[in-house]
Formats: sequence, C-alpha cells, structure tokens
Amino acid sequence: MPKLILVRHGQSQWNLENRFTGWWDVDLTPQGVAEATAAGVLLKDKGVLPTRAFTSLQTRAIKTLHLALESAGRLWIPEIKDWRLNERHYGGLTGLDKQETRDKHGDEQVLIWRRSFDVPPPVIEAGSAFDLAADPRYEGIAVPQAESLKLTIERVLPYWESTILPVLASGETVIISAHGNSLRALVKHLSGISDADITDLEIPTGQPIIYDFDAAMVPGARYYLKDA
Amino acid sequence: MPKLILVRHGQSQWNLENRFTGWWDVDLTPQGVAEATAAGVLLKDKGVLPTRAFTSLQTRAIKTLHLALESAGRLWIPEIKDWRLNERHYGGLTGLDKQETRDKHGDEQVLIWRRSFDVPPPVIEAGSAFDLAADPRYEGIAVPQAESLKLTIERVLPYWESTILPVLASGETVIISAHGNSLRALVKHLSGISDADITDLEIPTGQPIIYDFDAAMVPGARYYLKDA
Repeated sequence: MPKLILVRHGQSQWNLENRFTGWWDVDLTPQGVAEATAAGVLLKDKGVLPTRAFTSLQTRAIKTLHLALESAGRLWIPEIKDWRLNERHYGGLTGLDKQETRDKHGDEQVLIWRRSFDVPPPVIEAGSAFDLAADPRYEGIAVPQAESLKLTIERVLPYWESTILPVLASGETVIISAHGNSLRALVKHLSGISDADITDLEIPTGQPIIYDFDAAMVPGARYYLKDA
Repeated sequence: MPKLILVRHGQSQWNLENRFTGWWDVDLTPQGVAEATAAGVLLKDKGVLPTRAFTSLQTRAIKTLHLALESAGRLWIPEIKDWRLNERHYGGLTGLDKQETRDKHGDEQVLIWRRSFDVPPPVIEAGSAFDLAADPRYEGIAVPQAESLKLTIERVLPYWESTILPVLASGETVIISAHGNSLRALVKHLSGISDADITDLEIPTGQPIIYDFDAAMVPGARYYLKDA
C-alpha cells in the first residue's frame, strides 16, 4: 500500500542561531548532517525504503534528502525538486534573530506573526540583502514577499494534489524532505488539524513521519517511524 | 548557446584498488570526493553554471554530481538518473583486480577485453556475488550480463538522442556526471572518433570536459574547462 514519509531537514545554521530563515538558503550544521544521516539509517533499519523523492529548492532540504537516501541505500531513486515545497517566506523578518525581532517590532506583534494562521509578516524591504527575486533558482517564479501559514498552504496543497498524490496513488513509497511550515501544510491536510491548532504543531528535525494510505487513498493516523 | 559539461566521477574505491567495477556500486574515496568538489568550484570560477543534470544509477556518479553542484551553488537544478548512463558492465571480470584477471585469463586475453571495441568480457557467472539482476534499482531493466564498449554505446546513444539532446537544444547548460565508458560513448559520437581509436581515449576523473554547440546543434571541439 502507498506510504508517505515526511522528513523535516536537519538542524540548519539559522535554526541554531534562532534566526528567521524562510527562503534564505542556509546550510545544515554538522548536527543537521548527523540527523539526516540517522533518518536514512532508521528508514533502512525499519525496512521503509522510499522509491520516489520530492524536495524543495533549498539546500538544507536537498542535502537532508541526499544524506538520508544515501544512508538508506536509495540514492538512486528519482527525485523532483519544486519551490512549492519551500519553507514559508518570512518576508521582512528574514535574517532577524528572535531577540532582534522583538526589539524591532515588540513582543505582542511577534507572537501574532509566529502563531497566527493567516497574518503574514511584513513584506521584505526593497533592496534587502535577503531578497531572492533575482536568484536564478527562482527564475520564472513569482517569489513571495511574505507568507502566512495560510499562504504557504495555498501553494503546497495544489502541488501535493497535482503532482505528489498521483505518484503515491500509483503504489510508490514517497519521501518528502522539506521544511517546518511546508510540512505543517501537509500534516494539517492529511490529519485534519484546525487552523487554530496547526500553528502550535512542532515538526521535529530529521525525524521521519509516516502516513500509510489505504486503497481509497485515505491516510491512516500519522506516526513517527522511530516508534513503529 | 547550448553547452554540455561531461564529468567522470571522482576516484572510487575500486579505481584505487585497480579492480574491474562496471555496474558494481562502489563509493568515492576521499580523493574522489575532493575531485568532485573541485570540479564544482571550477564550474563556478569559470562561470559555467549547469541548469540541468543527468547521471547514472550508480552512487559514485550521483555523489560526484551532488558534490560538484553543491560547490558550484547549483544543487537546486533538476536532475535525472538513468541506467543508460551507467558504466560498461564488465560481466565476469567484475570484482577482479588487474593481476587476478591476468592470472585467471592470461595477459593476451585481458588486453583484448580491455582494448577491443566489440568483444565483450565473459558473462557474469550464475550466483556471482556481483550479480545485480535482483537489485531493486534495476527492477524492470534487463541488466546486461557483460558489455563491450560497442554494446555500451548502443544504450548510451539512444538515450542521448531521445532525452538529453532535446534538453540541450532548448538552450540549457547540461551536466552529465557519468563513467569512463558511458562518457567515451558520448565523446566518440560528438568528436567523431573511430572504433579503433576510442578504446585508447582516457577520460580523467573529476575534470569537466566542455562541448559548445552552435545553433544547428553541431558541437565544437571538446576542451577541458580548466584550460578555457
């Protein structure tokens, strides 16, 4: 039966520094590399072997995928990268650490941005060093200026429906290596989590989450592979 | 104009041990990792930035691609893996080192196998530890039992014509990370090398080779990027 594996990228340099990252392309830390490799070892040990892979256009997710596939003995499976699996775009917060953000915008506003479902952060400032509109990787793509979780879902779910779900429905074991918020979008959809509750759901780094689908493509309850 | 980058994988463990490898899936050595990374640095330094990638189903070529793309800042480009870019299948020679091969088959016969264009090595023995017919990566593929360079060309070139060439012709900068003999197949075709001469052509590991194409998709003379 179809099986879906979700993996959030291992720890990144800006996870470590507690900075808003979004679409900025930071690398994994050594701990992140170890988490990604361990995720693949777990897949191999549990015999949950992906046959098709999807990831974002961001280095931390791509490298997590490659490291996990390599340690699972599956580096050779087909892989598709798409911007619609990218992290939520944090707009003008990109690059700020949590303290800088509070100092600049105040505690209350920051809590609203972090925990609101549909309030986007401020748009990225013109000329910001973190503006990616001219990055060749996003050529032909309307790079968002800022995304709420709601806006993130609005580009993740159509991609899921149009591209990933048909592959899964054909009987493949699909792995998606992505980001906290693009994975929240999928978990919200697959586990039927409310708008109010989804913003509190934490997706741990490098920890494979599994959904088993039945013949009607209805997903069962999600679980951590380590607990299987 | 379209540009083609060919890269032979960095040194593998069996390159180092001087053993016939073929389709057996050996990893890169630390030197091979360094070669692959340096290839990507060269691409970046020369401003030859791939936009589409092709590789084989073999770890040493896939990892070479990933390492080179990462150091070139291009890990995010689309990548397609196909068995038709695999190394020549060395059949019953797989796993033997050059001395073992000479001891078993005699110097003269070994020279014929190594340097002949169309004499395949002996087929892989039934029950050989190196038989890959049941490997899930080759599911649905008629794994060869042994290939001459001629047989290798007969599966590389149709793939080139049907799949890679149209991408190149659309104006992309294509990188192919592959193997000594699958790259010989392409170089023979693109540079018009005779059957007699091609078996002596050495393709160095980790050294990007470039073909520039004109508007009629006629390739110019090949050159090493390091000399450009």
